[in-house]
Amino acid sequence: MQATLEEEEPLTVAIVGGGIVGLILTIGLLKQNVKVAVYEQAQGFREIGAGIAFTANAIRCMESIDQDIVTALRSSGSVATSDGNGADPNDYLRWIDGYNQLNQDDPHRQRMLYKINAGLRGFEGCRRDQFLESLVKLIPRELVHYGKRLETAEEPTEGRVQLKFVDGSVAEADAGILTTLVRVQFGSSANLSPDLVIGCDGIKSRIRAVLLGADHPACNPGYTHKVAYRTLIPMGDAVAALGQCKAQNQHNHVGPYAHLIHYPVAGNKFINATAFISDLCDWKDEKMVTEGKKEDLTSAFANWNLCVRNVVSLSPEKLEKWAVFDMWEYPAPRYNKGRICVAGDAAHASSPHHGAGACIGVEDCLCLTNLFGEISRTVGQPPTQKSQGIRTAFEVYNDVRRTRSQWLVNSSRRVCDFYHQPEWADESKWIKAETCFEELKDRSYKIWNFDYTSMIEETIQGYRKKMAAKNNLGSQLGEFES
Amino acid sequence: MQATLEEEEPLTVAIVGGGIVGLILTIGLLKQNVKVAVYEQAQGFREIGAGIAFTANAIRCMESIDQDIVTALRSSGSVATSDGNGADPNDYLRWIDGYNQLNQDDPHRQRMLYKINAGLRGFEGCRRDQFLESLVKLIPRELVHYGKRLETAEEPTEGRVQLKFVDGSVAEADAGILTTLVRVQFGSSANLSPDLVIGCDGIKSRIRAVLLGADHPACNPGYTHKVAYRTLIPMGDAVAALGQCKAQNQHNHVGPYAHLIHYPVAGNKFINATAFISDLCDWKDEKMVTEGKKEDLTSAFANWNLCVRNVVSLSPEKLEKWAVFDMWEYPAPRYNKGRICVAGDAAHASSPHHGAGACIGVEDCLCLTNLFGEISRTVGQPPTQKSQGIRTAFEVYNDVRRTRSQWLVNSSRRVCDFYHQPEWADESKWIKAETCFEELKDRSYKIWNFDYTSMIEETIQGYRKKMAAKNNLGSQLGEFES
Repeated sequence: MQATLEEEEPLTVAIVGGGIVGLILTIGLLKQNVKVAVYEQAQGFREIGAGIAFTANAIRCMESIDQDIVTALRSSGSVATSDGNGADPNDYLRWIDGYNQLNQDDPHRQRMLYKINAGLRGFEGCRRDQFLESLVKLIPRELVHYGKRLETAEEPTEGRVQLKFVDGSVAEADAGILTTLVRVQFGSSANLSPDLVIGCDGIKSRIRAVLLGADHPACNPGYTHKVAYRTLIPMGDAVAALGQCKAQNQHNHVGPYAHLIHYPVAGNKFINATAFISDLCDWKDEKMVTEGKKEDLTSAFANWNLCVRNVVSLSPEKLEKWAVFDMWEYPAPRYNKGRICVAGDAAHASSPHHGAGACIGVEDCLCLTNLFGEISRTVGQPPTQKSQGIRTAFEVYNDVRRTRSQWLVNSSRRVCDFYHQPEWADESKWIKAETCFEELKDRSYKIWNFDYTSMIEETIQGYRKKMAAKNNLGSQLGEFES
Repeated sequence: MQATLEEEEPLTVAIVGGGIVGLILTIGLLKQNVKVAVYEQAQGFREIGAGIAFTANAIRCMESIDQDIVTALRSSGSVATSDGNGADPNDYLRWIDGYNQLNQDDPHRQRMLYKINAGLRGFEGCRRDQFLESLVKLIPRELVHYGKRLETAEEPTEGRVQLKFVDGSVAEADAGILTTLVRVQFGSSANLSPDLVIGCDGIKSRIRAVLLGADHPACNPGYTHKVAYRTLIPMGDAVAALGQCKAQNQHNHVGPYAHLIHYPVAGNKFINATAFISDLCDWKDEKMVTEGKKEDLTSAFANWNLCVRNVVSLSPEKLEKWAVFDMWEYPAPRYNKGRICVAGDAAHASSPHHGAGACIGVEDCLCLTNLFGEISRTVGQPPTQKSQGIRTAFEVYNDVRRTRSQWLVNSSRRVCDFYHQPEWADESKWIKAETCFEELKDRSYKIWNFDYTSMIEETIQGYRKKMAAKNNLGSQLGEFES
């Protein structure tokens, strides 16, 4: 038997990408007594103000990984996205006719279409940068390396994974010339390279390209033909635009080829309003975010209900225009290769219409931390080899996670199609259009009611079975050889 | 208080349409001590050989309505659609790549795509005409009236529903002239007209037109742009065409713009093979079934896998071409109006791609029989009036049944779109195409695992609540009047 990795030493993991998924995974692996280092290309957390929300289910997954993660979320000012009122403290998702103007004396009157009860604290939202800051405090400072942009990763059949970074401190223009091999530091020990790599490097993942080959079509996420414009509106203005009840609770205004979603943030002082608009053209720009014009927004909603036009009129003149990309057209055929894998958006970048992209990434983390807990309890005990354990773990991870996470990518596209049905503008088609809500409910429940305990069970049993099969085969081969 | 109906007498129900749903409902209502008569436009059961299958869940619904219905099903020669083998007695649904020819020595080799376990006797199939004959034996002969084609039905605010039939014994061409008012017979009593009418008169329902108005777009089911060709093939030929395993078990061959489904029937002596082909054109013919040509079938599958071409080559030269229609584009806005309602295909005609159209109709029957059980236990006891009880029951029926049954119509279209994905012909898109199966599984489970006990509970509680509210309101109004 060839021991290609240092069997006596603890596992050493490199995580590429220090976003929500990368940091949660780091915290989870540290708790399982695995040595981890994180490599983040940015110099720090530069984003300001972008919001992120988690389902109650995802928060329970965090709790199962490490209670400290939930503490970090709450300490970064997370609030339930809908406050409800005294009589009913639950969170709801609401869909409302954003297009048709009812012929009523009350100009704020809109047709309520559907409502789903997401339960107590069904969604909790916070600012992304604040959550990242709280998370990073849970990780020993020396394990997080900023300004490290991955150039290549190689996984030889024997020996450790080799990572090459472009030092982010050099100017991007010169990056190609100044490539250096960064010596990966694991706490106090100084290894040149880790036992394995997990790519949590987002929609434009480099690790995905390493894993699938740079020419694979899944390396280029596709344009969903939707653009988004986001605005923060002071609550007083929002109440004037929408009426008090709508302003203070989450609402999703649907209509032909567009929708507008808003919910209260910052302790009810603002509403966060995001408009999504269908776009028949291709996206030519290299960047996914460009400068947008208010007139594009107002013209897209020109014939809509007064409330929606009111909200849109409160946008600033200059605003950011986000192109929504995802991996729908070319999903990754696998999330693993040898001792490399991808998690979160790097594996299954989705459009945001279920508000659950990061939640599914948290589920990935829960699966991986349980696998590495199992490995760190069993490797070093013959006949298990590290290398075989890692490869097997990643096979199981791929089996357990790929179906559900790629379902989310499809489902997010599907529900946006529902929101943008042209039928909303044609009264004779309203009944047809409204039949979408049963499916929308089922899809939401599939996300919210995920049985993560069963997933953990499936993960651990899957790993043990595969390892037993491999070891049996190994010892049988050994017998034949002797 | 105005007693518009004869409060002391048992309820009298006219069921228009003596198909599967009409007969099951009749048996269910008779068991609840309701007086029923059935009006069927055909002179008898003339269909020969067409098959029908029920899920295990629908059979449990039948059992809940009346155990005799299940006995009738089994006595009409129903068999589990897949026999499985000794080691695994379960039924499975299987999807298989019907298009691509694998470069293998075995010409029968095809790419297996997905399999769902439908459980023990997950599906039971029989000949439709045989099941109808077994069902009708459970109903007193004098209650079933053949050759009665409904012309109009009227529901005055007060008094009984008025039904007008065209006597089916007169030539159809003269029908318009020879319209006669048929005196409706309820057992030995001779009423002119029933307390209420339930339309189980199928996709071209006349009762639906009465209920919604003949001009309503839901009165004209739409072409799904799929045509179907069905063939019975002797098992020996089928084994030669497909190989033994595939011939003896249900398989669904998917490919670009078409699919072929087959399963063993008649005690494994034949396979029933149905091809569904996409059709971009409109359907111009008045009839939904016309004469088809084998060459249309062979040309649609010309580039497909050898096994599929083998099956297609076994079709006769002349065959029936079925246009698949449904109510997807214009769903009924309601299933009830006053003391008239619709059930089964009359309410929610679906394409057949879930194999569950009749099953959902059986669920309708279960809901209605429970409602009329409740009514017949409580009407005649003041303050409940018959008329109010019936109207309320139909409101509850509409609330309980419309969402799920219209979901099925959508879902059946959706799964056929999955089967016909053009991506099946493009290897670079296979991963994308295969992401459909998670959704397909969820949709199948939603049909198979229907919680009909909760539906019954919801139905009865819904009725009691509405009646209590109406009676309270009534007595309050009475107080104000006095």
